[in-house]
Amino acid sequence: MVDKLAGKVLVAQGGGPTAVINQSLTGVVLEARKFPHITRVYGALHGVRGIIDEDFLDLTRETTHNLEAVALTPSSALLSTRDKPDRDYCHRMFEVLRAHGIHYFFYVGGNDSSDTLRIVNEEAEQAKYPLRCVHIPKTIDNDLMENDHCPGYGSAARFVAQAFGGVNLDNRALKGVYIGVVMGRHAGFLTAASCLARRFEDDGPHLIYVPERPFDLDRFLGDVDRTMKQYGRCIVAVSEGVTDASGQPIMTRLKPGMGQDAHGNVQLSGTGALGDALMDHVKDNLKLKRVRSDTFGYLQRSFVGCVSDRDAHEAREAAEKAVQFAMWDDIDGSVAIRRPVPNYSVDYELVPLKNVAGKTRHMDDAFLNEAGNGVTQAFYTYVRPLVGSGMFEPARLRAARVAPVIKGRSS
Amino acid sequence: MVDKLAGKVLVAQGGGPTAVINQSLTGVVLEARKFPHITRVYGALHGVRGIIDEDFLDLTRETTHNLEAVALTPSSALLSTRDKPDRDYCHRMFEVLRAHGIHYFFYVGGNDSSDTLRIVNEEAEQAKYPLRCVHIPKTIDNDLMENDHCPGYGSAARFVAQAFGGVNLDNRALKGVYIGVVMGRHAGFLTAASCLARRFEDDGPHLIYVPERPFDLDRFLGDVDRTMKQYGRCIVAVSEGVTDASGQPIMTRLKPGMGQDAHGNVQLSGTGALGDALMDHVKDNLKLKRVRSDTFGYLQRSFVGCVSDRDAHEAREAAEKAVQFAMWDDIDGSVAIRRPVPNYSVDYELVPLKNVAGKTRHMDDAFLNEAGNGVTQAFYTYVRPLVGSGMFEPARLRAARVAPVIKGRSS
Repeated sequence: MVDKLAGKVLVAQGGGPTAVINQSLTGVVLEARKFPHITRVYGALHGVRGIIDEDFLDLTRETTHNLEAVALTPSSALLSTRDKPDRDYCHRMFEVLRAHGIHYFFYVGGNDSSDTLRIVNEEAEQAKYPLRCVHIPKTIDNDLMENDHCPGYGSAARFVAQAFGGVNLDNRALKGVYIGVVMGRHAGFLTAASCLARRFEDDGPHLIYVPERPFDLDRFLGDVDRTMKQYGRCIVAVSEGVTDASGQPIMTRLKPGMGQDAHGNVQLSGTGALGDALMDHVKDNLKLKRVRSDTFGYLQRSFVGCVSDRDAHEAREAAEKAVQFAMWDDIDGSVAIRRPVPNYSVDYELVPLKNVAGKTRHMDDAFLNEAGNGVTQAFYTYVRPLVGSGMFEPARLRAARVAPVIKGRSS
Repeated sequence: MVDKLAGKVLVAQGGGPTAVINQSLTGVVLEARKFPHITRVYGALHGVRGIIDEDFLDLTRETTHNLEAVALTPSSALLSTRDKPDRDYCHRMFEVLRAHGIHYFFYVGGNDSSDTLRIVNEEAEQAKYPLRCVHIPKTIDNDLMENDHCPGYGSAARFVAQAFGGVNLDNRALKGVYIGVVMGRHAGFLTAASCLARRFEDDGPHLIYVPERPFDLDRFLGDVDRTMKQYGRCIVAVSEGVTDASGQPIMTRLKPGMGQDAHGNVQLSGTGALGDALMDHVKDNLKLKRVRSDTFGYLQRSFVGCVSDRDAHEAREAAEKAVQFAMWDDIDGSVAIRRPVPNYSVDYELVPLKNVAGKTRHMDDAFLNEAGNGVTQAFYTYVRPLVGSGMFEPARLRAARVAPVIKGRSS
């Protein structure tokens, strides 16, 4: 057996929080603490920003009990950052890692975080400083290359399914048009998960629009109109990032100048503007009275008490595997989740950082219907296992109608 | 023992759905089916509208199994209505009830529904038609007179607490101002329940605004500014119905003309306009960059999988009691929930319909702090038992900070 490189482990979390991101944190800490050549396990506060600032917690001295309690808590326990490091920033990070004798760096994050890790990894190699860098996937957007699906997605998808499940029942009781705006700039996986709310034939969402297909305002009105005629109600799930055929955000088409900051950037999250604009568009054009819109916003990202058990287990296991790849195989990379058969098991592989770093995965064509307003059976097969066990199944009254008395008289 | 009036029972559901309203439906059906003098149990579809239309289901022929499954399903299984019956409408309802030999009418609803029932009850008395009318309370707003609290509120409060629980963790990871707009036109109970998200000293919501206190835009800015200076972040919970000191909706102060329909009515629910306007107001005046807003909208009303067990039990029991009052005591009225001691038991009383009908209860003064931006200990004592068991408690890392190496050198 070869001697292992003695030194410290650092773990950090980047980008938007998820419901299970602390499962990965706890997985790294508990697994790394098993190895005798690991002298300390540090956590950087506020992601890469904490490295620059030398803002570390000594997680070697955290109790297992509390680590397990933190694992069940949504949102980054090590706090997060939106810093997008350039090469100079990465170089300064690397200097701090060297000063602290950190030889293993685990970064839990999405596309941007994996790209940061790739650059840090290259800096270390050029300086001939031994630094194992392993990326642990995390994103509610589910848009990392090489992965069948990403930790964090299953729980957010469960929230979206449960939200539309309730909205469907509400809208059935008090009919009208309902538009739910779901997070997702470039990938529609999260919005598409709304399909799991459907149990009965007339259940919504009746229409699902994702960024992978151009959003045409006239076709949208036609879809809503047809659904209203068929069911007397219409539930729409739409990604915040939908664009027209030319790639322009729909918001700029509906309300030119609205929802943009001083630099002309369209703010997609943290505002109800798109939902309200779509609502007005339907009201004005179809002359419908009861049209409502909700923007799911931050609720879908770390709602307390909505976790997919499978997602939690995989977030933990992906982190354990990350440590094992670094310790036993002594290689860098990104942990990728594979699914050998649709229904259902997972394997973890380590793939080169460059295969994942800064890239975006989109929904497969096979997941979307031809009309561009719904999902296929293939997507149901894909998404159903990810939201975990114990999904609630709404029930309906099935008792027979009573024959009218007064109406009977007059006819 | 006196002979009981033989005849049919009718149950209906009115107004906005709740997560536990079908517990009350199932409670009425199962309890009423026990009595031999009850010939049928009917359910009216779409509330009072179903009475006018003679649109009844024969719930005598519904399975107990399915009734129990429906009880667990959020939102009105008998569907609902926003019809506000006038005296003529009530008279037509009464005619249908007579035509079908219905002698017991149970209506699950809020302020408006209890007022409808009061008028129907009076019509029947004038016509000397025997009709027991019992109102079963239901509202997420918790604003029915005579009640310590109302079925439906506990589950919605649980949703709001869990939503702010997640939002607090998210906002701690990525700091900024967050404004969450909660349902509530006249009563702030639901918004105030956000206080249950706080576990650690710096947890949000830091500011809570309810309709019972005038909302002053300048004081609001001062509150946010002070909180940002203290914690570097600020979470606000605000009722959709907040008004200025003169009773004007805040929306009309922030964006005159916006969010109003052709008749000048301000649409409060089903739009993100108030949240967005408050967000812009903070951004513009405090020159803060990261300000976000969510409007909880319909998610808080019937989100699948977020039920207070206590709320579910009480919704069931209030309905059972309603049937028992009608059958054994042969009286009309509204079932009211009392709480003999704060921590915790309930009694059910039947109070006159006129005590509840069309009236609105507001939060007690003792529940609100003097500054008008938060709740008191008394409110915690009040609300904590209502959200039920198994509330998640977030955990934090408590490991010690690591002494800096590079910063140490330079100092």
